Amino acid sequence: MTLRDWGYRLLPGLKWLQGYTGQDAVADLIAGITVGLTVLPQGLAYATLAGLEPQYGLYSAFVGGIVYAMLGSCRQVTIGPTALLALMTSRHTGFGLGSGPAYAILLCLISGIVELGMAVLKLGALVDLISLPVTVGFTSATAVIIGTSQLKGLLGLKGGSGSDFINTMRSVFGNLHQVRRGDFTLGLVSITVLLLLRKLKDVKLDGRVRSLRAQQLISGTIWVIATGRNALVVLVTSVLAYSTCKQMDSCPYILTGKVKSGLPKLAVPKFETTILDKNGTEISQNFEQMLSELGPSMLILPIIAVLGNVAISKAFGGAGLSPTRELVALSMSNICGAFCSSMPVTGSFSRSAVNHASGVRTPIGGCYTSVLVLLALGLLAPYFQYIPKAALSAVIISAVIFMIEFEVIRPLWRCSRRELLPGAITFVMSLAVGVEIGLLLGVGADVAFLVYRAARPVLSVSKLQTTNGINYILIRPKHSSLYFPAVEWVRSGISKALTTHGTAPVVLDCSHVHDFDFTAARGMGSLQKELAKANVPLFLMSAQKDISVILKESTNIDFPTIDSPDDLESILEQSETSFAPDYVLHLQIAAPLVESRLNHCDDREPTELCKLNAKSI
Amino acid sequence: MTLRDWGYRLLPGLKWLQGYTGQDAVADLIAGITVGLTVLPQGLAYATLAGLEPQYGLYSAFVGGIVYAMLGSCRQVTIGPTALLALMTSRHTGFGLGSGPAYAILLCLISGIVELGMAVLKLGALVDLISLPVTVGFTSATAVIIGTSQLKGLLGLKGGSGSDFINTMRSVFGNLHQVRRGDFTLGLVSITVLLLLRKLKDVKLDGRVRSLRAQQLISGTIWVIATGRNALVVLVTSVLAYSTCKQMDSCPYILTGKVKSGLPKLAVPKFETTILDKNGTEISQNFEQMLSELGPSMLILPIIAVLGNVAISKAFGGAGLSPTRELVALSMSNICGAFCSSMPVTGSFSRSAVNHASGVRTPIGGCYTSVLVLLALGLLAPYFQYIPKAALSAVIISAVIFMIEFEVIRPLWRCSRRELLPGAITFVMSLAVGVEIGLLLGVGADVAFLVYRAARPVLSVSKLQTTNGINYILIRPKHSSLYFPAVEWVRSGISKALTTHGTAPVVLDCSHVHDFDFTAARGMGSLQKELAKANVPLFLMSAQKDISVILKESTNIDFPTIDSPDDLESILEQSETSFAPDYVLHLQIAAPLVESRLNHCDDREPTELCKLNAKSI
Repeated sequence: MTLRDWGYRLLPGLKWLQGYTGQDAVADLIAGITVGLTVLPQGLAYATLAGLEPQYGLYSAFVGGIVYAMLGSCRQVTIGPTALLALMTSRHTGFGLGSGPAYAILLCLISGIVELGMAVLKLGALVDLISLPVTVGFTSATAVIIGTSQLKGLLGLKGGSGSDFINTMRSVFGNLHQVRRGDFTLGLVSITVLLLLRKLKDVKLDGRVRSLRAQQLISGTIWVIATGRNALVVLVTSVLAYSTCKQMDSCPYILTGKVKSGLPKLAVPKFETTILDKNGTEISQNFEQMLSELGPSMLILPIIAVLGNVAISKAFGGAGLSPTRELVALSMSNICGAFCSSMPVTGSFSRSAVNHASGVRTPIGGCYTSVLVLLALGLLAPYFQYIPKAALSAVIISAVIFMIEFEVIRPLWRCSRRELLPGAITFVMSLAVGVEIGLLLGVGADVAFLVYRAARPVLSVSKLQTTNGINYILIRPKHSSLYFPAVEWVRSGISKALTTHGTAPVVLDCSHVHDFDFTAARGMGSLQKELAKANVPLFLMSAQKDISVILKESTNIDFPTIDSPDDLESILEQSETSFAPDYVLHLQIAAPLVESRLNHCDDREPTELCKLNAKSI
Repeated sequence: MTLRDWGYRLLPGLKWLQGYTGQDAVADLIAGITVGLTVLPQGLAYATLAGLEPQYGLYSAFVGGIVYAMLGSCRQVTIGPTALLALMTSRHTGFGLGSGPAYAILLCLISGIVELGMAVLKLGALVDLISLPVTVGFTSATAVIIGTSQLKGLLGLKGGSGSDFINTMRSVFGNLHQVRRGDFTLGLVSITVLLLLRKLKDVKLDGRVRSLRAQQLISGTIWVIATGRNALVVLVTSVLAYSTCKQMDSCPYILTGKVKSGLPKLAVPKFETTILDKNGTEISQNFEQMLSELGPSMLILPIIAVLGNVAISKAFGGAGLSPTRELVALSMSNICGAFCSSMPVTGSFSRSAVNHASGVRTPIGGCYTSVLVLLALGLLAPYFQYIPKAALSAVIISAVIFMIEFEVIRPLWRCSRRELLPGAITFVMSLAVGVEIGLLLGVGADVAFLVYRAARPVLSVSKLQTTNGINYILIRPKHSSLYFPAVEWVRSGISKALTTHGTAPVVLDCSHVHDFDFTAARGMGSLQKELAKANVPLFLMSAQKDISVILKESTNIDFPTIDSPDDLESILEQSETSFAPDYVLHLQIAAPLVESRLNHCDDREPTELCKLNAKSI
């Protein structure tokens, strides 16, 4: 490989510069600024949601853009703070004494490292385990939790916003008498305006304006207003608050308060901090104690981040993207971010959509966004303090409200009700206990179903007759695999068939089966021995080569085989002489109570499988 | 139902009394006494293993026999203390101040209740999740742990026997200089004698004795000695210890010490106790604290108990037994036992084998065993104190040594190496961390494999040509189910096929697929849309009715279908006109680095699936 190839390999982003024209630059600039105008209010709001000072949201908003431009492969993806990760971060920022940023930044670093690990071990596929109903339950629950956590800001109630749905609801409803009219009005108006502006995009002019030029101009203006609605609402309400609060002594709105001006310091994340315990005493926390506080978040947060990011790049980039490369880009965004005081970041679906709609051409657009954020940190920060909290809450609420999805319930109800369960478990438990637990339980329910299916394959049982009048029982597992949890099921299925249909040779049709394991093989072995004692032959039909091998190796039994259904009749007729059809079968199931004594425990030795399973003392 | 039917239903054991002849009674009596002679030394030894005073082993040995006679259905099963459950109990008996029995008895009660719950909820099938390699790994590790825990008794070292393999080994090797010659010699001789007597059973007389009568007599004597070897060794060594320790001032053997005489009190288990903490202070534990100390044992111990019991009744009783009824019998043995100061009990494989070999005819044999144990408690207890500990250790070691199974490794290595992993994980982690954790990890590894198989079905891909020369790509999933974790896999498989074989209509052969879920359906929907953009038609061939329904309901797309392979050619030829074969496909995977920019992110809208997956903020 040449030096150049190595360069491309290490920094795939270099390729964007190849043939990067002035037109490309202008398109990227416009898109970058549009996304910047969205991320500024969102960043301030999400930092508050995460329990941090507002500037941390901006610190989180610029590293991702630059890193992704160098490493990423899908031009629309914009990486930065998101409501979901802010919510998950907020669990660890409530211990006082400025420990919040320390925890958030450490979590950012660890997420990056875990994501890098996932990239190296190719574990990105873990997100495949999250089914659609679980995803819907999870995002819907998150939206509800985030929405209610913003009620306080919207109503002008004091007190931090928590991630605990039930406590937040209790606290809001317990303090309804303290609702501040100013904040509430402002918040409600802001939400209304935001939702209307969002709808504006769908307005079609439909030739009502005659001149093409005027039509383009009007469309363009509408688009700019609709896309920049968050910035617009924040700007207008801030101006309103600025002018009102100068005139009056008591301001009618709760304001964001001082936002620290200037760029974040480049610094190694802190590996120790000081917190206040329940009694108000200062306790210093070392690295281990911090890790133990972060606990499962260190694993679940990166998985959620990857899930979001993969889904976005898939939505815009199609199946052509390398998941590993996306994972590396996300991971480096977090790792580098941690050195710039960032909280955990991932791809934002709403901003990526803005980016896409703004006509971005390469990920370099993200760099322009970053520059805008840095400029804001340096120049605009003093003005951010006038932003009313109710306006920021309105920005968040009108964003998350569309994450609640009812539309998936109807098709699920109509065609696959079983799948409502994991979704419902995820939704309810996320609200009741926490989003991480909810997600884990939902995935657990899905996995339990997969195991259940493996353990209880469908068996089709039929009693048939050869042309010469020999009865036989044909058992066909419809599942393609026969693994350890299914052995007992198949065995008892065959006994039941013999009880129902009377004693007859058993033919096990393996034509659909092509996975088989040792436990299953041993189980078939002991079944064969049991049947042999009752003089019932057990034939394997159409068994693949590897199934025969594993059966032979693990049981040392030569199973009589039927290679193809065509040979079935002749083989059964040949073997008829050795078969005594009047034998009382020992494998009786559901035998009448009193008679069963004779049938139950005969004098035969423990079977091979049981010997292995049960040797005890 | 008549009163009589109800009686049978509640106490199925009543049926054993129907036609119970004198011959039956004699046979059961002989078997009962033989089992009793085995359970006496084993009970004393297992109680010590569990960290309790020896009499608790006997308390545990009589309730099961009576309860099982009334409720059980397999004549050979004998329920009582086992080495495995004793080992698991020993984790909770080391807190001093007589809290050991309180914890053990409470655990017995809770195990019984959990087993009853499993019976009611039909969860007995949970043992299906434990595959053969995991079972082997688990029992082998248990045998090693129990064996090493008995080294102390064998070597005459002081100190309790723990359940922690590594600590026990360290403590044994650190105290090798304190080995007592008397105990060691006695223990070694006992083990040798026990193993030789065990082999004695296999001795064939082969006509070397001419008279049939003499031959029968000799065979009978050999059988009695071999079967009663534990009792014999304990008796002989006790007599030896009794006579030696009378003559000498310092006894050369460590003796069992006082065994409390008399029957256990009928009493409700204690729901509170007092323990010593690390610093030696007394702490009282209430019910909740006791439960939290028992922790996962409350679930894992009953599952292990059920596993053992099911395996035994299956080995002797065949497939004809009702697992639920067996579960109820086991459950009631534990619940009733807890009121007689019993530690957790389950079926013992070795004693059940003795029972079987002794010719037991009904579970009433267990009642005779119980009477013998009660007699021993009343009359023999004063003499038990002379039993040398080394002899009891020898009894345990020579029992567990046969639980270590190497013979299963060879067939696994030859035909299914993958399955060695869960077994190895179980074995190693059981030794390193604890048997419960080891078992859970082993089952986890097995379940992970099942999920992996569901997530990565085998796809067979072939490029074919109709007789009229139309190329098409036939993709056939070999798995019978297509669930959520497999969607991405199938999608990327199809893209890969298109990259490799060039653009051509894709035919997805669903003839083997008969399970399908909502996530998979949506995934197919977005694949269809992606392909449609590239003018690549996607046909479903031989799809079952319910698959078509779920696809239609969840995606609102009418997939072009091919009902049978026979229609394939004509349908492909009809559709050829609408297919543009020279289109550059967007679904390129592994495209060269620099060229890929064009292919990656086109201007199409996010697909349906991704919209659902990824709505974020």
